[in-house]
Amino acid sequence: MFDFEFQNPTRIVFGKNSVAKLDALVPADARVLVLFGGSSAERTGTLAEVRAALGKRERREFGGIEPNPTYETLMRAVELVRAEKLNFLLAVGGGSVIDGTKFVAAAAGFEGDPWRILETFGGAVTSALPFGTVLTLPATGSEMNHNAVVTRASTHTKAFFANPLVFPKFSVLDPTKTYTLPSNQLANGVVDAFVHVVEQYLTYPVEGLVQDRFAEGLLRTLIEVGPKAVLEPRVDYDTRANLMWSATMALNGVIAAGVPQDWATHLVGHELTALYGIDHARTLAIILPAMLGLRRDAKRAKLLQFAARVWDITDGGEDERIDQAIEKTRTFFESLGVKTHLSDYNIGADAIDGLVAKLEEQGLTKLGERQDVTPTIARRVYEASL
Amino acid sequence: MFDFEFQNPTRIVFGKNSVAKLDALVPADARVLVLFGGSSAERTGTLAEVRAALGKRERREFGGIEPNPTYETLMRAVELVRAEKLNFLLAVGGGSVIDGTKFVAAAAGFEGDPWRILETFGGAVTSALPFGTVLTLPATGSEMNHNAVVTRASTHTKAFFANPLVFPKFSVLDPTKTYTLPSNQLANGVVDAFVHVVEQYLTYPVEGLVQDRFAEGLLRTLIEVGPKAVLEPRVDYDTRANLMWSATMALNGVIAAGVPQDWATHLVGHELTALYGIDHARTLAIILPAMLGLRRDAKRAKLLQFAARVWDITDGGEDERIDQAIEKTRTFFESLGVKTHLSDYNIGADAIDGLVAKLEEQGLTKLGERQDVTPTIARRVYEASL
Repeated sequence: MFDFEFQNPTRIVFGKNSVAKLDALVPADARVLVLFGGSSAERTGTLAEVRAALGKRERREFGGIEPNPTYETLMRAVELVRAEKLNFLLAVGGGSVIDGTKFVAAAAGFEGDPWRILETFGGAVTSALPFGTVLTLPATGSEMNHNAVVTRASTHTKAFFANPLVFPKFSVLDPTKTYTLPSNQLANGVVDAFVHVVEQYLTYPVEGLVQDRFAEGLLRTLIEVGPKAVLEPRVDYDTRANLMWSATMALNGVIAAGVPQDWATHLVGHELTALYGIDHARTLAIILPAMLGLRRDAKRAKLLQFAARVWDITDGGEDERIDQAIEKTRTFFESLGVKTHLSDYNIGADAIDGLVAKLEEQGLTKLGERQDVTPTIARRVYEASL
Repeated sequence: MFDFEFQNPTRIVFGKNSVAKLDALVPADARVLVLFGGSSAERTGTLAEVRAALGKRERREFGGIEPNPTYETLMRAVELVRAEKLNFLLAVGGGSVIDGTKFVAAAAGFEGDPWRILETFGGAVTSALPFGTVLTLPATGSEMNHNAVVTRASTHTKAFFANPLVFPKFSVLDPTKTYTLPSNQLANGVVDAFVHVVEQYLTYPVEGLVQDRFAEGLLRTLIEVGPKAVLEPRVDYDTRANLMWSATMALNGVIAAGVPQDWATHLVGHELTALYGIDHARTLAIILPAMLGLRRDAKRAKLLQFAARVWDITDGGEDERIDQAIEKTRTFFESLGVKTHLSDYNIGADAIDGLVAKLEEQGLTKLGERQDVTPTIARRVYEASL
C-alpha cells in the first residue's frame, strides 16, 4: 500500500426532507448567494424549499450555471458576491453547479487574475468563502470532495483545480430530489460514478485490500441499482438512496487513499466535451472500453480481479476473461441508454487529429497511473472508440 | 436506508516513518502533554521519535494509562494539564491511551464533576483540548472516531461517552509501529475490529447496499490478513498496513451511516472485563458466537448474507448455513489463539448471576438493534458461552 494522507471534513445530511435542515446548517447571520443551474431547480420546487429554509437571511440568487460550468459565467457570480458582500454560498444542483460554486468560493477573495486558480491546479488558493450544497443529481461526488472542473468557453479548455479549502461545509443529500430527473441524467450519473471508481481501482495491485473491496462494492452496487433507477417506471426510495450514496463514496477520497490512480479516461474524454459538447459521462462510456482493451497488459492483474469480483467471470483464459469483463461493462452502459461509440455521435476518424492536438496543446501527454498514455496511445484509444 | 448524518474531520497520516511528521501536525507554540501506557512506548523507541519530532515545544509526559483506562488515573492527567496550563494532547498508544486522552481533553476545561461527562454519555461536554494520536496498536478505531470508554475502578463500571469535540485533529498511522507487538495483542486487534464491523452489519436489512458491501469487504480483509499478522513469523508491511487500515475503517462511522447497530455483544462482554479483567477483545470472542446463535431469528436475513458473502457458504438449509457461519467465525477467532468459551478463563455458571446483576445495575436491560436483549436473553448468552 502507498503512504497516504486522508481528510474529509464535509458534513453529510442524508435523507428525506433534509433540505429543511438548512436553517440549522447555514449561519444565522450569513449573507447567502444561492447558485443553481437551469429552470428545473425552480420548477421542481427545490428552490422554494431552500428559500423557506433560509428564512430571513439576506439572500441573492444566481442561476444559469451551465453543465460544464464556464469561467465566464462563474466570474459574473464572483462579481455579484463582491458587489453585495455576500459571505456564504449555497449550491443547489448537480456536479456542475457545485464545481462552479467551488470556483466562486475560491475566486471571490482571490488577489489577481482568478484564472490562475486553474493554472496552478488550485495551488494558488489561500482562502475561500464557506459554502454548502443541496445535491439534486447523484453523479460527480463533488458534494463531498475538494475538486472542481471549470471550462473556459473562449478557448474550449476544461481545467481542473483542487484545494482543501473548497470542501463543502455540508452537503444535503435528499434522494427524493432525484425523483424528477429525466432518465438520461440518471444514466449519466450511474456511468459517471462507475468510471470514477474504475479510475481509482483498475490500475495495478499495491495490496490495498480494503480499497479494492470498497471499490468492488461500489461497482456491484451501481450495477445492481443503476438499471432500476434508470429503467424502472416506479420510483423506489432505496434505489435512489443507494445510487446517491454510491456516487458520493465513489469520489470522496476513501477508495483513493493509498492506491494508484489513472484518470486517463477522464482526460481523453474531456476533449470530446470541450470540442463536441458530449455529456461528460457519455464521453467516459465511449472512452473506457477502448482504454481498458488497449492497456490490458499494464492493467492485467486488476482487470482479472475486476472480471472475477465485479462480474463473476472466472472461466476461460486471461484475455478471454478480460474481453468478457470489458464487454459486460460496455453492455452495462448501453443497457442504461448510454452509447459507447463515437459513431453514435456522428464523430468520425477525421476528428481524431483535432482531439489529439487538443490534448497535446494542454500538455496532457503522459496520462495514467504509469504516465504511459502518450498522444500515440490516446490516438489509438480514439480510433478504437469509433 | 435510514436517514443519517455523517462527518469525520480527523486527518489520517498513514505510512512508514510518519511519526516525524508530528512537527508539521502539532502547532509550533503548543504546550504538549504526551500520554502513553506501559513501558513499551519507551522500549520500542516510539517515545524517542515523538520527542525528537516535537523538538523544542514545551512538553510534559504522562505514562501509566492502563488497558481499560481508569477515571482515577485519567484525573491525575487532568490535574497535570490544569497545573501546567498545557493546551495540546498527544496520545501515543492503542485504543486505551486514545480513549483516555479523549476523556482528558474533555475533562480539562470541564466545569463541575468530570464524571458527569460519562453520566451524560458526552452530552455535557462543551469544549475539549485539541489532540492528536500516534497509533501503535490497530484494534479499536479510536484514532478516527469520537467515542471513548472509561472505567471507574472504584465501582468496576465501564462507561461510554461520545462527542464530536473529541475527534482527534490528526492520527499518525505507521504500520511498522506494530512490528514489535506480541501476537496476543495483534490477535486481540483482529478480533476487536472484526466484531466492530459485525455490530454494525449483522442486524436486519435496510437496503444499505454500500454499507453492507463495505462491511463485508472489511470482514474478508480481516479474515485474509489476520492469520498472517498473528501467526506468520515473518513481518510483512502490507499485511500490517491492511490490518491497521481495516481496524480504522471498521469504526470511523462510514459503515454505520444509515444502518441499524447492535452493540449487545460489546455491552454484555464489558461485564467480563469489569468483573474478571478479561481483555476486551477476548470478551467479544466469547460472547459473539453465543449471541449470534441465540438471536438467529431476528438476524436471519443478515446471517444468511454473512454466510454467503463473507464465508462463501451457500449450500444447505438456512439454519445449517447459519450454524456454519457462526462456527467459521468461532474457528477464525480460535485460530488466532483467542479462546471463545468462559470455561477457557475458568469462569463457571456460578458467575452468571453476578454478571447479569451488573448489567441490570447499569440499566443495560434493552440491548441490541431491536432492544430485545433483556437480562433474560443476556443470561442465556452467558450460559451458551460457558
